[in-house]
Amino acid sequence: MTTTTPPVTLDDVRHAAERLWGVAHRTPVLRSRTLDALVGAEVHLKCENFQRGGAFKFRGAYHAASRLSPEQLSRGIAAYSSGNHAQAVALAARELGTTALIVMPEDAPRSKRSATEGYGAEVVTYDRYTGDRVALAETLAIERGLTVVPPYDHPDVIAGQGTAALELLDETGGLDLLIAPVGGGGLIAGSATAVKGLHPRAQVIGVEPDAGDDTLRSLREGRRVSIPVPHTIADGQALQTPGELTFSVNRRLLDGIVLVGDDEIREAMRFAFERLKTVLEPSGATGLAALLTGRAGPLPERVGVILSGGNVDAERFARLCGPDA
Amino acid sequence: MTTTTPPVTLDDVRHAAERLWGVAHRTPVLRSRTLDALVGAEVHLKCENFQRGGAFKFRGAYHAASRLSPEQLSRGIAAYSSGNHAQAVALAARELGTTALIVMPEDAPRSKRSATEGYGAEVVTYDRYTGDRVALAETLAIERGLTVVPPYDHPDVIAGQGTAALELLDETGGLDLLIAPVGGGGLIAGSATAVKGLHPRAQVIGVEPDAGDDTLRSLREGRRVSIPVPHTIADGQALQTPGELTFSVNRRLLDGIVLVGDDEIREAMRFAFERLKTVLEPSGATGLAALLTGRAGPLPERVGVILSGGNVDAERFARLCGPDA
Repeated sequence: MTTTTPPVTLDDVRHAAERLWGVAHRTPVLRSRTLDALVGAEVHLKCENFQRGGAFKFRGAYHAASRLSPEQLSRGIAAYSSGNHAQAVALAARELGTTALIVMPEDAPRSKRSATEGYGAEVVTYDRYTGDRVALAETLAIERGLTVVPPYDHPDVIAGQGTAALELLDETGGLDLLIAPVGGGGLIAGSATAVKGLHPRAQVIGVEPDAGDDTLRSLREGRRVSIPVPHTIADGQALQTPGELTFSVNRRLLDGIVLVGDDEIREAMRFAFERLKTVLEPSGATGLAALLTGRAGPLPERVGVILSGGNVDAERFARLCGPDA
Repeated sequence: MTTTTPPVTLDDVRHAAERLWGVAHRTPVLRSRTLDALVGAEVHLKCENFQRGGAFKFRGAYHAASRLSPEQLSRGIAAYSSGNHAQAVALAARELGTTALIVMPEDAPRSKRSATEGYGAEVVTYDRYTGDRVALAETLAIERGLTVVPPYDHPDVIAGQGTAALELLDETGGLDLLIAPVGGGGLIAGSATAVKGLHPRAQVIGVEPDAGDDTLRSLREGRRVSIPVPHTIADGQALQTPGELTFSVNRRLLDGIVLVGDDEIREAMRFAFERLKTVLEPSGATGLAALLTGRAGPLPERVGVILSGGNVDAERFARLCGPDA
């Protein structure tokens, strides 16, 4: 057995929280008597859909970018993302007084592109089927001297994402179980670092869409495995393989991963809409789906769930959850 | 010029707030940089869609019911409503340890009926086209010795509804303008009582759907007028004539009424969904529609808007705001 220094510590998350103070929203924690009665636990919902940019991603992106040198910041930052990380990096650049270049697929949803441009970023597109976004972003970054802010596989990003759980623990005074979605693994890695650092006996469970179970499979095999491109409505979690750094944290700290199906995710989105009056995108609803399906197992007394984002436009919501869905 | 004692005073609203303390939610006040930039004012959104029962109605219903005598309460309460007042009275009865009988049209939405029954109320239906719900409710009330809790035209109901504005004023430290929807007029009458009582120079503007402009017409004529049954998606405001008591308050205190169309209401619902990540029913979005359309006129510095309710199921939202809307 080898002991290595963890890439991210509770203190790192605490320092990230200091940097984010007054910049990121301290998002509200929602309670619902109906939900508590349904699942038989005291549930605390951390509403990152109310975060700036509509998702937790701003925490990690801003934190990582804020730690760049003045010289790096003066040249600008870059990212490749069609999703919430794009908006997060664009917003972080604006907050830090620098520029952002975002590489997005040509067919990215109009709303995501216009939101990213709305924050002042330059968007460069590539063909999703023939282009290599990582290579394109890195080439452009080298040409222009930009620093790429990675979406999850970086200690500063992980520490930033962990601040959502830190706030939730602070507000609730402690939890017996925290449930959070797993995409690249940054949110759950940061969350687990915060939870296990403060309350070593508390459990941390990640949730993946059943078609995108790369982290579950990797944990079972004890090494990072790759799966085919996942087909799921939970686009924020449609990854083929876990991050290297995030996996090294998650294999050490997670108590388990549960899977939820697309229909269960839709049902959780509907529940959030009708009962909580709040808007969740598919990935943002997977933690709630794990609760509502009972998939998270017999629940302890106090359960926290991170509702990770709410970037779904009304039309897509209607298609996913409307009368013809 | 005659001077009469107002039927509801600031002190009445304050006393109602004391009764509601710990029973009604002190709902959150949302801010949005996007919205502020769009309309050029500092906007404070009072989220009554997060109120118990999903709308402000619980405030007035609980307050009125809580002031009944122990004997009245032991016999039970009743209401006629197909909307949010039904759920509010059902919930108030449960909180006060009594029973509720709700008279609803046969064709009331399944979700509203089941929510009302879910709070433990007995639902009696009538034929919307041939039945007289007021007569039916009053007959049943007399037969069973129940006390009818009116939806708006009662001082205790008006005082209860005013507590939402009181909280908003307390949280913001004061406003230059408050905008709230007008249905029967209870919410706006209570709100205006609170606003004008605390800040006599602040403005209060009501919003009606353009098809349901009974209060606007009544204010213009200086007396309560009746209009044909309004056809509007804002079902909470589809009234034919203002309440007697509410009108007497509103003619004295309101600075104006603005009208918004159904398409403008849909647009406000979409804005709330996509930008604020929060769910509003059509009536709940009319105040926001007044802002977004510029209909509320040149705005002063600090504007409060009451988002009065969020009881719209996912299917109806999809029909109203989805791709085919």
